[in-house]
This record gives sequence, C-alpha cells and structure tokens, in this order.
Amino acid sequence: MQEPLLMDLRNNVYLEDDSLVIIDRRKLPTEQVPVVCRNYEEVARAIEDMVVQGAGDIAITAGYGLYLATKALERQGKTVKWEELEPVINRLKSTRPTGFHLAALLDRLKRDLAETNEEKEIPLSNRIQQYLETILDKQKVRSEKTGREAESLVKTGETVLTHCFAGPALFYMLRYARGNGKDVKVMCTETRPYLQGARLTAWSVSQLGVDTTLITDNMAAHFMSQGLINRVFVAADRVAIDGVVANKVGTLQLAIVANYYGIPFHVLGYGGPDRRTRSGKEIPIEYRDPSEVLEFRGIRITGPEVKAVYPAFDLTPPQLVTSIITDKGIFRPENINDYWTA
Amino acid sequence: MQEPLLMDLRNNVYLEDDSLVIIDRRKLPTEQVPVVCRNYEEVARAIEDMVVQGAGDIAITAGYGLYLATKALERQGKTVKWEELEPVINRLKSTRPTGFHLAALLDRLKRDLAETNEEKEIPLSNRIQQYLETILDKQKVRSEKTGREAESLVKTGETVLTHCFAGPALFYMLRYARGNGKDVKVMCTETRPYLQGARLTAWSVSQLGVDTTLITDNMAAHFMSQGLINRVFVAADRVAIDGVVANKVGTLQLAIVANYYGIPFHVLGYGGPDRRTRSGKEIPIEYRDPSEVLEFRGIRITGPEVKAVYPAFDLTPPQLVTSIITDKGIFRPENINDYWTA
Repeated sequence: MQEPLLMDLRNNVYLEDDSLVIIDRRKLPTEQVPVVCRNYEEVARAIEDMVVQGAGDIAITAGYGLYLATKALERQGKTVKWEELEPVINRLKSTRPTGFHLAALLDRLKRDLAETNEEKEIPLSNRIQQYLETILDKQKVRSEKTGREAESLVKTGETVLTHCFAGPALFYMLRYARGNGKDVKVMCTETRPYLQGARLTAWSVSQLGVDTTLITDNMAAHFMSQGLINRVFVAADRVAIDGVVANKVGTLQLAIVANYYGIPFHVLGYGGPDRRTRSGKEIPIEYRDPSEVLEFRGIRITGPEVKAVYPAFDLTPPQLVTSIITDKGIFRPENINDYWTA
Repeated sequence: MQEPLLMDLRNNVYLEDDSLVIIDRRKLPTEQVPVVCRNYEEVARAIEDMVVQGAGDIAITAGYGLYLATKALERQGKTVKWEELEPVINRLKSTRPTGFHLAALLDRLKRDLAETNEEKEIPLSNRIQQYLETILDKQKVRSEKTGREAESLVKTGETVLTHCFAGPALFYMLRYARGNGKDVKVMCTETRPYLQGARLTAWSVSQLGVDTTLITDNMAAHFMSQGLINRVFVAADRVAIDGVVANKVGTLQLAIVANYYGIPFHVLGYGGPDRRTRSGKEIPIEYRDPSEVLEFRGIRITGPEVKAVYPAFDLTPPQLVTSIITDKGIFRPENINDYWTA
C-alpha cells in the first residue's frame, strides 16, 4: 500500500525554480510527465487543457498562476499593484466556468491580501505563496473531515460506486473505513471521454490497497439491478444554495439510476455550497471541444460527417441526492444552506 | 449520400473462394479490413472476437461457418451426415450466449434441411448456402417492415437517441422519414468499450445524409434533461415472452433515464420475441474478457492492481419499454407474445 500520488496536491502541483510543475493528469497512470508552466498564460492553458482537473485543485493551480505573474512583475523591480494583476485574474478565471472554487479563491486571495495592503515589506509574490500554502493546509483538513463524515455512512461488506475523480475525501473515507475494520470495495466508472475514473480514481484507490473494479459508464445500472452496488459517492464542482449539484457529466445519469433502485446517492461536498449561486439555473455548463469526443488518443473513432458535443458537467437536482457530506457534517441537499451556520 | 456498408449484410459478410470474408467491424470506419475465415473454427473465433456483431448478423455468419464445415467434408468425397455436423453446430452455438438468433437459426436450418433428407442429389453445402440466401432476403424484408413501423412513430423535428448498433431497421426508418418529408436528427452513444455507436452506427447514419451527433455514454441524461432528445430506439439481442429485453449493456440505464423524463423508449424487435425464452430470468448474460475494459487500443488505461468486469448485455424490464416494434406491427412489451398471432 502506498500514498496515492493524487491524495495530496503538493505531490503533483508544485513550484520549482520559479516555474509551476504540474504532473500531467491526462497521461496518468501510464506515464508521470511533468508539464512546466513558466508564466500565468501557460498555467491558464494547462487548466484549459485539463493537465490538472478537479475544482479545488484547479483553484490552487490558478493561484500559482497568479503567483508566477506577480513574481515576473517583481523581477522587473516593481512593487506590484493589484490593478496590474486584474488581467491575469480575469484570464485565469476564464479557463473553466462550471466550478466555483477557482473564481472564489482568486477573489478571496485578492481581498485578503489587498486588505493588508501593498506597502508591506514582504513582496506580494511571497504573500501569495504563503496564502496558497495555508489554503492547501485547510483543504487537507477539509478533505480529512469530509472523509471521516462519509466513513460514518459506509458499512462493512459494501461496494461503493464512484464517478470521475471525487478527490482526497474519498481516499480518506476508505482509509478510515479500513482503520475501523470495515471491508469496503470500490467500483469506478471509467468516465469518458477523459477517463478520469479509470486513470486517476481507480488507480489511486487501488494504491490504497482497496479492492477496485473498473466499469464503463454504461454498466452502472446493470450492477445496481443485480444488487452489487450499495451506495454512490461523487464530488461536486459546485453546489448551489438550492441543492443542485454540478459535477462531471454522467453524475445526473447515475443519480437517476441510483434513485430508481433506491440506492443512496452521496455528494462529497467538502467546503459546502457556493454562497454566490442561489440556484442551479445560474451554473454555467462548460462545453468543451467536440474533438475530445470524436477522437481517442488522436485517432478519429467515427465517420468524417459525424458531429459531437461535449458538455463537461451536468446538473443533478436535490431530489435525487441523498446527502451532501461536508467538513461540517452531513446535510440533506435542500438544507445545504445550513452549512454556513453549522 | 451513399448506401451504408452496414445496411446490407451481404456487403460485409460474404463467401469468396470457399472462404468466408468478414469486414472487421472492430476496425470500422477507420479501416475496411477483410478477415478471411477458411473453416468453421475461424468463423467461431471471429464471432467470439466481435469481428462481426449484432444478433441477426452473427446468426447468418454462424450459418456460413456450418456451410464451410459441410463443404470441407464434401471435398473429401463424402455425403455429409447431420451427426457429423453436431460438433460444428455446438461449437458455433457456444460463441455468444445472449442473443437467441444464432442457436435458433442453426436449429431451424438443420430441421428444415434434414426433413428434405440427405439423399438429395444437391450437395448439402449448396442447400445450406441457398437456405442462408433465403434468410438474408427475409431479414431484409423484416428490417424494411420494422423500419416502416418505426417511422410511423417519429415526427418531424425530432431527435432520436440510439445506443450501440440497432441494425438496418434504424436506417430504413430514417430513409422512410426522409421520404415522408420528416426532418429527423440522430444522437448516438459511443457505446464503450467497443464503440459500436461511434464506429458503426454514427458512421452509417451520417452516410444516409442524416444529421448525426456523437455523445459519450454518460451524457444521455444531460441531453434528456435539456429536452433535446424526443425518443430512444435500441435493438434487442433477445426479447423474452415476458417482455424483458436483452440488449447491449447500457440499454437498461438509458431506459431508466428515458422513463424518468417521460421520453418514449422503443425497441426495434424485428422478428419478435424468442419463443423458447419465457422469462428474462432465463437469458444468460455474456461476460467478456475484462481486458477489453482495462485496455484501449492495447494500452492499459488504469493502474496494474485494478480489476474490471465486462457484462456485454443487460436486461431491461417491460415497464421501462414503451413499445417493441416488429415486422408485424408495434406491441406493448407485456403483449409481445401476441406477435405470433399477429
């Protein structure tokens, strides 16, 4: 058993020689290829191209993009002004629209650091780096707490299904379950077209020593109909105040099917809903390049006249969600706004 | 607009110099590679390896396997006895268990030709070949009729979703709709792991000049939730008398999701249910080699410790099926046994 590479972001997104190194998630687990981003534009493109993915991880990565831009300005001997960073922040925010963590982190970082003002003797880049370190620490605690809450729901002998990459809370959940003597198996959907479920989740879960089975996205109902799946855990790129969950496309389908079979459907909600999104209707769904569906490893898989469409996320209504599991406890989706007072 | 290669089996499974040539469906549409089977064992392996697929097409292909075995015995100067062909028939039947057409065709062929007895002056191989030709003609008429019935359900402006490869009836339906001035669009699930939807169906449908959009298997619910899919058409590898439909894995999931959104879910049932299968419980689900899920184009897509499981089919209960469309009309699944008296 080993610590999965993706259990801690510090293992796969880190600064080195004033560049940001990202282990390319599109190539995992076959190859561990570092992508070196020397400036914020390269970071923005890496986020767009899904070199890194997952709402929380994208946010931190974007934060490092801001760090690189700040550092570059400082190297010219300037005291950096926030106005100069506006275009950088806007560029980074524009990369992925569905998750809220990215914009929320950049806005909060700016607010918190601007309050302490620009005349401080410590260069802004250092303060940004320190800020991101603090957030990484907080995220780790949040993942551990969310994983511990999730673990309270799982019973020994159960098989849990997961979709895409639900993040470290899933891994902590499994580790705590093991610690409590629970035998839990995991089934992962492969999660086309990027295969995050196969490449990232199934790989990471198996590294924890957990019995891991990979299925294609169209098999979930079959195994549910056979009574072979006891509960479902997914993450969320954004939870709205009305309990609507935006997550990797395919989540909605799993929720409907789980609901049909009476199987609990849980969302790992980490730090809770997005305060600024009152309703799921406000969540923009990112549509990505159709070639990502039409091709596999660069080879076209269909005829030349065929079109494709690639919504990267879908919206699951609260009535299909059993619970949203956060670092502050477990909520019914219709009560997720109570997170703020919990 | 051209005639799709897969609209008529004679285009892609045919005799040549006493061998059976099968255009390898696993390579379509990127390449058109003929696989030459010189004996029945090679035919059996081609069926197992999915060089050809689709319940009706597999049955005819197996028939040609029997033809090759008969011909080989005749070349030794013998008058072939049916007892000698028993191991051949059993081998061919063993290739794919879920569809019923294969076993049904071989049994019927034997019964019909054995009745006319072995002493006839025409060699048995010739009679088998003639028999298969007749069945091909009947299948074509059946596909046309089924397509015509299906067309009666479709309205102009609709988008229909299909899964895997529903066979020629789908193509006839689209051609008749066009002839009747109906504008119908098609959305195809890619159908992992073999990508029949992407490689065979989307390609063929686009060759008919129909607006064709490819999606991954996990996107169907998203488009249904947006009101972008008006009805679903799939085929069936077997329909039991109780109305349970066995079809490519993923069918059940689509049926549940279509049902959730009140979208009609139709099964192209061609020549009706299997008389010998009273209940869906009797249908054996074929489990294929897990490596077909763990690898893509020979490259492993997950970690070394991850297992996989590959049920090739699933069972959709009648309450999720709006109608079963056959060459003798359209039936509610619970009344599918009326097919025999229609």
